[in-house]
Amino acid sequence: MNSSTNQKLEIQKVESSRIAEVDFNNLTFGSAFTDHMFECDYKDGEWQNPTIKPYGPLTISPAAKVFHYGQAVFEGMKAFKDDNGKVWLFRPEQNYLRINKSSVRLAIPEFPRDVFFEALTTLVKLDKEWVKPGQGNSLYIRPFVIATQVGVSASPSSEYKFMILMSPAQAYYTGDVKVVIADHYSRSANGGVGAAKAAGNYGAQFFPTNLAREKGFQQVIWTDASKHEYLEEAGTMNVFFRVNDTLLTAPISDRILDGVTRKSVIALAKNDNIAVEERPVSVAEIVEAAKNGSLKEIFGAGTAAVISPVSAFSYQETIYELEKQEDGFATRFKKELMDIQYNRSEDPFGWRYEVV
Amino acid sequence: MNSSTNQKLEIQKVESSRIAEVDFNNLTFGSAFTDHMFECDYKDGEWQNPTIKPYGPLTISPAAKVFHYGQAVFEGMKAFKDDNGKVWLFRPEQNYLRINKSSVRLAIPEFPRDVFFEALTTLVKLDKEWVKPGQGNSLYIRPFVIATQVGVSASPSSEYKFMILMSPAQAYYTGDVKVVIADHYSRSANGGVGAAKAAGNYGAQFFPTNLAREKGFQQVIWTDASKHEYLEEAGTMNVFFRVNDTLLTAPISDRILDGVTRKSVIALAKNDNIAVEERPVSVAEIVEAAKNGSLKEIFGAGTAAVISPVSAFSYQETIYELEKQEDGFATRFKKELMDIQYNRSEDPFGWRYEVV
Ligand SMILES: Cc1ncc(COP(=O)(O)O)c(C=O)c1O
Ligand SMILES: Cc1ncc(COP(=O)(O)O)c(C=O)c1O
Repeated sequence: MNSSTNQKLEIQKVESSRIAEVDFNNLTFGSAFTDHMFECDYKDGEWQNPTIKPYGPLTISPAAKVFHYGQAVFEGMKAFKDDNGKVWLFRPEQNYLRINKSSVRLAIPEFPRDVFFEALTTLVKLDKEWVKPGQGNSLYIRPFVIATQVGVSASPSSEYKFMILMSPAQAYYTGDVKVVIADHYSRSANGGVGAAKAAGNYGAQFFPTNLAREKGFQQVIWTDASKHEYLEEAGTMNVFFRVNDTLLTAPISDRILDGVTRKSVIALAKNDNIAVEERPVSVAEIVEAAKNGSLKEIFGAGTAAVISPVSAFSYQETIYELEKQEDGFATRFKKELMDIQYNRSEDPFGWRYEVV
Repeated sequence: MNSSTNQKLEIQKVESSRIAEVDFNNLTFGSAFTDHMFECDYKDGEWQNPTIKPYGPLTISPAAKVFHYGQAVFEGMKAFKDDNGKVWLFRPEQNYLRINKSSVRLAIPEFPRDVFFEALTTLVKLDKEWVKPGQGNSLYIRPFVIATQVGVSASPSSEYKFMILMSPAQAYYTGDVKVVIADHYSRSANGGVGAAKAAGNYGAQFFPTNLAREKGFQQVIWTDASKHEYLEEAGTMNVFFRVNDTLLTAPISDRILDGVTRKSVIALAKNDNIAVEERPVSVAEIVEAAKNGSLKEIFGAGTAAVISPVSAFSYQETIYELEKQEDGFATRFKKELMDIQYNRSEDPFGWRYEVV
């Protein structure tokens, strides 16, 4: 891309904004989109014609490989507006690195850093009115790549489209999150694509998650596919267990997404002198800790919900309830994270990234 | 669907056929498409407006769930023209049942049988000139379903599109197929989606298959994700091993596609009084059989290539060559299958399905 002659970002602005049509007090997560989107095509061996244009439909062949072979990866990140109207991203470098890591695993060409950041910041600047200030409000940003070559033979595409969509989001009230610990279905295996944000990982979870929902649980905590003995992560969140005052979480592996929120929580905990163990966490020890009262909290960590406390888990038909912790670790890390994200506190780790 | 008021199949014919533009002697698999395609949308809880229309691009939101969450399944089947110009499908009921099985696993609503068969046969009749007679020529048929609801929240789509594309295919000369036995990467795990023809299963294989290609091998034979001790299947083929005069193949499980060619080969073998064992086949026993000379053949079985003999396999850096068998099982089953498919022999199992 750096050597390409087509690298100048083209900008086609909307004639009039749709922002007045949007009810910012009643947003369904991920269903309204800002005025502009970013598009860049890969063909003839290079990323070409990076363009910001009005959000709108694609014209694409029904034989495009993405529809048949799921050759697609994505990212999820957020922009926040502080009380002075400045807009900040949170650790965008992590998402940049991760989408390329996902792409490599899916045999998709990596995307150039300069184009990614220019597109991202230009887009956020253009649509900055869509980022509302106030605790919990944010702009959810969705970079993704899809295979666009026409052809139904099962081989890597020679053409791709990299896009960025943006969607205004409100505080994501997850309510009482109850989870089921998986003992039959699985999300990923050693040597698979679990560590990639590959599109197919998500569709594959819908059916078992529906089964959990039918029983009154919102999410599944996945376990290792071989024996279902170790706790891994939830559908869109990494998971932490607080046993007495120690925080436990599964180590990064090729089965688990290396979450930005996860690594931020770990950094905050260490900074606060809280003991953190990144190691295989067995179902047996968590069940035992629930029984003997040493299990104080379980919470999910991810961009969409930030920190999501778990109020109960079910394992092999037994339900274990967790006592509500007003001043627990979940509350504390959520506040510390959001204070950094909304520019209300110091940023000792250099996580904030000013856009405008 | 049966209760729907919109169930009549609408047919929009092309004004003029593109068939003259196609060089039927130089077809790349899956890249040319016939004049018509089938489309049917699911919304408000039912499949609506089944339509056959000219093959052409879709207009679809970049926020459609298929692009983000890989909620998509497909099928692959073929039509054959006999020497009298009649066109036949091969066991289409199997593909109908399997796409719905795949859909259930991906939380996609099942498609009604009557609409499937009416669409399929009407489409093949309309485009029957695209099915060329002669050994190896066929029409490859690709039914598939994609999630079309707009929204980037990770939950099942409320809207879908069921489509059928058709692509003329020539004898698929696979040449000398050499395979690598997987000892690190994996395709699927217990409790996963390996038994479904889910789009994401295929994109996930491209990277490890590229690694095999770089070493001069065309395909990977996947092994169990837990320990890589048992042989499962190849990327788009089930796999058979002939040890002395016994045929071995992995049993159907939730990790393996229940291949139509596989079950047809098993039926033919049993009918020919050849011993077939459907049981876990260990890498160790096949390596041992290769060493002691009792391993006579390995072949893949799948719709695209029918039967594909394997000339060598690599396992942990050692290459095992197989002697070419002119009159082996692979040759025999390929002939028996194709004789049935092209209406050149009896059809004792009732596998042929006359279209026109
Ligand atoms: C499978 C999975 N695990 C964990 C996460 C959390 O990662 P992050 O904190 O980077 O959003 C996500 C969501 O992005 C995810 O999809
Ligand atoms: C993973 C996989 N295994 C096996 C097969 C062979 O199945 P069939 O004989 O039904 O084409 C296919 C191709 O369809 C496949 O995709």
